[in-house]
Amino acid sequence: MTELRALLRPELQGATPYGAPQLDVPVALNTNESAYPVPPVVVDQIAHDVAQVAATLNRYPDREFARLRELLASYLTKTSGEHVTADQVWAANGSNEVLQHLVQAFGGAGRTALGFTPSYSMHPLIAGRGGATWIDGLRDADPKRFDLDADLAVEQTKQHDPDLIFLTSPNNPTGTSIDLDVVRRVYDASDHAIVVVDEAYTEFARTGTRSALTLLPGRDRLVVSRTMSKAFAFAGARLGYFAAATELAELMRLVRLPYHLSSVTQAVACAALEHADTMLAMVERIKTTRDALVDGCLELGLQPVPSDANFVLVGGFADSATAWQALLDEGVLVRDVGIPHHLRITAGTAEENTAVLQALRTVTAAGRTSTTKGNA
Amino acid sequence: MTELRALLRPELQGATPYGAPQLDVPVALNTNESAYPVPPVVVDQIAHDVAQVAATLNRYPDREFARLRELLASYLTKTSGEHVTADQVWAANGSNEVLQHLVQAFGGAGRTALGFTPSYSMHPLIAGRGGATWIDGLRDADPKRFDLDADLAVEQTKQHDPDLIFLTSPNNPTGTSIDLDVVRRVYDASDHAIVVVDEAYTEFARTGTRSALTLLPGRDRLVVSRTMSKAFAFAGARLGYFAAATELAELMRLVRLPYHLSSVTQAVACAALEHADTMLAMVERIKTTRDALVDGCLELGLQPVPSDANFVLVGGFADSATAWQALLDEGVLVRDVGIPHHLRITAGTAEENTAVLQALRTVTAAGRTSTTKGNA
Repeated sequence: MTELRALLRPELQGATPYGAPQLDVPVALNTNESAYPVPPVVVDQIAHDVAQVAATLNRYPDREFARLRELLASYLTKTSGEHVTADQVWAANGSNEVLQHLVQAFGGAGRTALGFTPSYSMHPLIAGRGGATWIDGLRDADPKRFDLDADLAVEQTKQHDPDLIFLTSPNNPTGTSIDLDVVRRVYDASDHAIVVVDEAYTEFARTGTRSALTLLPGRDRLVVSRTMSKAFAFAGARLGYFAAATELAELMRLVRLPYHLSSVTQAVACAALEHADTMLAMVERIKTTRDALVDGCLELGLQPVPSDANFVLVGGFADSATAWQALLDEGVLVRDVGIPHHLRITAGTAEENTAVLQALRTVTAAGRTSTTKGNA
Repeated sequence: MTELRALLRPELQGATPYGAPQLDVPVALNTNESAYPVPPVVVDQIAHDVAQVAATLNRYPDREFARLRELLASYLTKTSGEHVTADQVWAANGSNEVLQHLVQAFGGAGRTALGFTPSYSMHPLIAGRGGATWIDGLRDADPKRFDLDADLAVEQTKQHDPDLIFLTSPNNPTGTSIDLDVVRRVYDASDHAIVVVDEAYTEFARTGTRSALTLLPGRDRLVVSRTMSKAFAFAGARLGYFAAATELAELMRLVRLPYHLSSVTQAVACAALEHADTMLAMVERIKTTRDALVDGCLELGLQPVPSDANFVLVGGFADSATAWQALLDEGVLVRDVGIPHHLRITAGTAEENTAVLQALRTVTAAGRTSTTKGNA
C-alpha cells in the first residue's frame, strides 16, 4: 500500500485540518455564528424561490450571477454611503473562496502575502495553499497590544514589499476596527500590492466606524471583502463577496471555476438580500449582548478587549487551554485562538450570555486547572 | 491608475476567461446539460427539505457532510457493484472543485500533471491555476484517432513521470470510454502518481461498460471522479464528488476551505440522491437520442465519433468555426472544441435532435462559409 501522505505537497506534510471541534454542547460560542435563526418571512421567501429554481437545475447557473451582484451592490451602497456598482462586486462560496480567488490571481508561487498577527487564521492558510509565502507581520511592538500600529504596518509593508496585504477590520480574533487612516497609509506604502480589507464583522462595529468601501475611489488595488455569514446570520448559506475596482473584479473570471455559484446559492442569497433589513434586525441586540459580555468579564476581573465584532477576546486566564476545558466542562464551548491567557467568546443570546458569564464565574472562582489541550 | 492586469501572476497575463458563450438561442446544445427539467416529485422534495434547513442557516453547515457522503456511497455501490463506503467519498461544488482539491494536495508548483489531449479542457486549467506544470500527452500517434492508445499512454507516463494523471472516461469532447485495462496499465506505470479517472459522463456509457470504481481495491492512488451535473440533470446544483481510498479522501480536509459545501447544497443534493431512480429516468432516452444523432450525422455524410456520453463529436466539416456560426444562424448553438473539422453536439430532446439535424442538413447542403470565429 502507498503511503499517501508522503505524496502530498511538501508544505502539507505535517499539516492538520483547519476547524473548530464540532461538539454537541448546550452553549456553542466558538465560531462567531449568529444565535438567531433566519426569520420566518425569509424562510418562506427562500422556500418559494428555491422551489421556483429547482425545476431548472438541469441547466447550469448564470455564470455571471448578475442579479446577486446587483443586490449586493445595492446593499453596500445603502449601508456605506459609497456608491458601489454591480460590476465592482465579486462573490463566491464564502469569503474564504473570495480570498482564494485573489490569491490565485495575484499570489501563487514566488509571491508573498503579508498579514498582521494575530488575525484571521485562514489568511495564511489560503495564501499558503495557493503557493504564496506568508509573512507574519506584527500588530504592535508590544505583543500584548492588539491594535494595528500604523507606523509599524507601513514600515513592514516597505520592508517586505509583499504582493498581497491582508488587513482585518474589525479584527478577528481581537475584535477592534482599524482606523481608515491606517488603511490609507498601508495602501500608499506600496505601488503594486493588492490590499485586502477583510470586513467580515463590520456590521457589528461601534457607531461612527466607517467602512473601507469609502476608500475605493481612486484606489484600484484596494479590495473590501464581506460575508453574509455573520451579521446576516447566514453562515450555512456560504456567501462571501468583495467590492473593488471594476477591472479587478473582472479579472476574477480568470481564476474562478466556471459556474462556481450554484443556482440555489444565488437564489437563497438573493432572497436574504431582498430582506436585508429583517436579516440584520438582530445586529443591535447582538451588539448589546457583546457589550454586556465585556462588562460582565470586567466585573469578574478578566481583561476583555474592546470589540467591534460579535465576539469578545477575553484575557486574564492563567492558562488558555485549561480555562477552555473548564468552560467546556460547564457546557460552554468557546475558542482557544492560540493567544496566551486569552479565549475568544461569541456574543450569543442573552440567555447564552448569562450562561457563559456564570461558567466564567465558576471557573475563575475555582481557579480550576487541567492538562487537557484546547483546540486553537 | 494601476494597470491591474500587470499585477496578475505571470501565467495569467494573457489568459481569457473559460466558458462557452451564454447566448439566448432556440436550441442550446453546447454545454452537455440535460434537456429534461428536474421531475416534479424531486422539485417538491427539494422545496420541502430546503424549507426545513432554511431556518437554521445562521449555523455553519456540517463540515463533514456526513449524510451526503452516505447517499453518494450508496449510489455508487448500487450502480457499480463495487462496495464504496462513505469515508471513501469526497464532494465539492462541482467536479471542478473536487479536481482542484486533488491538485492542491498533490500538485502545485514544481509538480507536473499529465493528460491526453483532446480531453476535458478544465483539467489543464485547474492544474495550471494550482501551480502545476501541465503536460499535453497524445491519445494516439495519429491525431485523427481519438481512442487512448494503451502503449502510448504507458510510455508517456514513464517518460514524464508525472505527479498527477488525468484520464477521462467517457472522454470529453470525443465521447468514448477507456478500457479498464488502460487504466490498470497507466496506474502500474507509476509508483507515485495520483491517477484520476474523470467519469463525469459514465451513466451514459454503452451497455457493458464498467466503471473504474471496480479497480479501487488495492489501488490507493486511484481516484474516480463523478458529477451530478450530467446524468442527474443537476448542473445548476453544482455537486461533484469522487471515490478513492479512505486515506486519500481524508487528506482532502487539508486543502478544502472550511464549510465548503453549504447546508442548502447538501440538502438539495441529498434530496436528488434519495430520488436517484427518478433523476436518472431520462438517461436511457438521452442515449437513444444520442444514437439517433450519430445515425443522422452519418446519413448526412458527416463523421460522428462513437459516443458513450450525452454528446457526439461530429467530424467532416470543412471548417469548424464556419460551421459553428452557420448552425448558430439556424438557431442552434453547439460547441467548437478546437478540433479541426469537428464540432461537439449535446444530445437534447427528440425535438432538439430533429432541429439540429435539420440545421446540419441546411448547412452541409448549402456548403455555407463565414469568416466569423466560433468559440472554442
